[in-house]
Amino acid sequence: MTLGYEELLIVGFGNVGRSLAKLIAFKQEYIREKYGIDLRIIGLVDSKGAVVKPGGLTASEILKLVETPRSSLRLQKPYGKTYSSIVDVYDEVEPTIHVELTPPNYDDGEPGLSHIIHAIKNHVDVVLANKAPLALYYDKIMSMAIASNVRVKYKATVMAGTPLLNLVLGLKGYEVEYVKGILNGTVNYILTEMHENLVTLEEALQKAQALGIAEPNPAIDLEGIDAAAKIVIIANTLGLNIKLQNVVRQSIYNISLQDIRSAIRKNRVLKQVAQVDFNKREAYVKLEEIPLENPLAKVNGTYNAVEIGTSINKIVVVGKGAGRIETAYTILDDIISIALEKRGYR
Amino acid sequence: MTLGYEELLIVGFGNVGRSLAKLIAFKQEYIREKYGIDLRIIGLVDSKGAVVKPGGLTASEILKLVETPRSSLRLQKPYGKTYSSIVDVYDEVEPTIHVELTPPNYDDGEPGLSHIIHAIKNHVDVVLANKAPLALYYDKIMSMAIASNVRVKYKATVMAGTPLLNLVLGLKGYEVEYVKGILNGTVNYILTEMHENLVTLEEALQKAQALGIAEPNPAIDLEGIDAAAKIVIIANTLGLNIKLQNVVRQSIYNISLQDIRSAIRKNRVLKQVAQVDFNKREAYVKLEEIPLENPLAKVNGTYNAVEIGTSINKIVVVGKGAGRIETAYTILDDIISIALEKRGYR
Repeated sequence: MTLGYEELLIVGFGNVGRSLAKLIAFKQEYIREKYGIDLRIIGLVDSKGAVVKPGGLTASEILKLVETPRSSLRLQKPYGKTYSSIVDVYDEVEPTIHVELTPPNYDDGEPGLSHIIHAIKNHVDVVLANKAPLALYYDKIMSMAIASNVRVKYKATVMAGTPLLNLVLGLKGYEVEYVKGILNGTVNYILTEMHENLVTLEEALQKAQALGIAEPNPAIDLEGIDAAAKIVIIANTLGLNIKLQNVVRQSIYNISLQDIRSAIRKNRVLKQVAQVDFNKREAYVKLEEIPLENPLAKVNGTYNAVEIGTSINKIVVVGKGAGRIETAYTILDDIISIALEKRGYR
Repeated sequence: MTLGYEELLIVGFGNVGRSLAKLIAFKQEYIREKYGIDLRIIGLVDSKGAVVKPGGLTASEILKLVETPRSSLRLQKPYGKTYSSIVDVYDEVEPTIHVELTPPNYDDGEPGLSHIIHAIKNHVDVVLANKAPLALYYDKIMSMAIASNVRVKYKATVMAGTPLLNLVLGLKGYEVEYVKGILNGTVNYILTEMHENLVTLEEALQKAQALGIAEPNPAIDLEGIDAAAKIVIIANTLGLNIKLQNVVRQSIYNISLQDIRSAIRKNRVLKQVAQVDFNKREAYVKLEEIPLENPLAKVNGTYNAVEIGTSINKIVVVGKGAGRIETAYTILDDIISIALEKRGYR
């Protein structure tokens, strides 16, 4: 079966962008055989420049580029280009799918927000892993997308590695009452370390940073902003228009070993829990002592878990929630899904 | 927002058909407000006749019909009709969505198979809860649907109440290695009873029948045919063309209390497990002693659980797997999803 090709512009060329480019280089053949879709990377963009090749980079060109230093795409011959904005890139190539992997900026969503608006205005389908534009402007983005008849997929923004949002999209017939989950792998890793080895927050954080699980600046995770962004995306996907700034958050910065010991004495585990309540129409991220018999209590390390309460059922989903490889696979699924949907397949 | 209307033909008017009709009667208003879709039931069909009303039945007409005796639709005035085949019904009304709820027949898939083929040939989108046509002829049905540009949705066939298949459809980027699960609520209820109360298979089955959990003829569940059909549907959804007749099945008929005690002594639980192995390209349904610490061991009663192993992740989904109400909600989601997708929404 041959269905056609998709031309990808990948914006953001850090860990996830490189993992994705590599994955596509390795799986191009397999995807062509299994789904009849020829995935071509026609452009890669980092913060200082881009590589642009209208016909699509070859697998060996991609594999060379993923080994180059950060922010050096403009220097890579023969396809490197300096550019001052995404408009320049679109002047040179016309992708069929725009993949937005810039880092999240929770102040104003930029530069991701402008990038995807530019893509939508150009009638280009969008896949994003950058949570900030959606957490801040879900409604605006989706309205624009519908008006322009453009698909926007964003499965990798929540529980990357586990297609939770697909399952959530299958709940339209239901009255969902709440969604509650452990959505931040970094914080969960730190809390698990504190519980299992009785180390302080500082020690656990240092270990997480040494392993590359926590960012050098971990505030977005530790202050609950990342978990809040994810619960906002889940809520909006289910039709509840909540904004990031309205999520009540509790930081984990002042957790002491005493808090951990106190939870243990009660046969409980201290977890960072993000929750949205659809009746009260509110969301929060807080620390909660969870009884050991609750499935969420057993979710450790970088695993995530979500419990969905509906009027007639309780659904629990557990799976990996982070990792550049997992994220790359999930983005790839969104890309393939767009390619198939456009052609009437599922 | 007003998007338009959908005209439903519901074929099969037993427990699930009645629950669905009632649910639509109660939720018509809510669905119109939330999704802009006006759902109209223009026909109901049972084994002996039909009720047909081209403009759509009113909520109070629906609520009266769900209280009528089995197989009596033809006698209900003023819209009752005798008919000899689905062709007669289609001669009178043209639905936009065909909902197929006839009971599964694992010999040849009939009458469900002919019904949905007729719908597809008439370019009518299909939602089905009847597993047999898919378990026997997945490829044929899907090829026809694609050729006719028709949507076929069937989320209620597996883990009704829990949209597992939506999550499965989000794994296209992944190498799925296996899917393994407890997929039959009736058998799981019986085995749970045997474990918790140390009763014989016969006693547990009688209790299940008294509660309406097991059918008067429970062979399809106890011989593993139902679980096999479900694992076949999961496998095919993930692109592995396996047929029901190729699934190796183990019946639970000869389980004794001794087997249960033996499992308990080993700190294990005896479960009916359905599994598909994507590397070996084979599927089976068998009895397995599962260690207590495995999440599948804790799934009791009519709950279902599925574990999905990919090259980079292990995903566990737990939720209700049976019940006429749960099934009706899941069918309703498929109906709304078709209505939204047709109009470019998701």
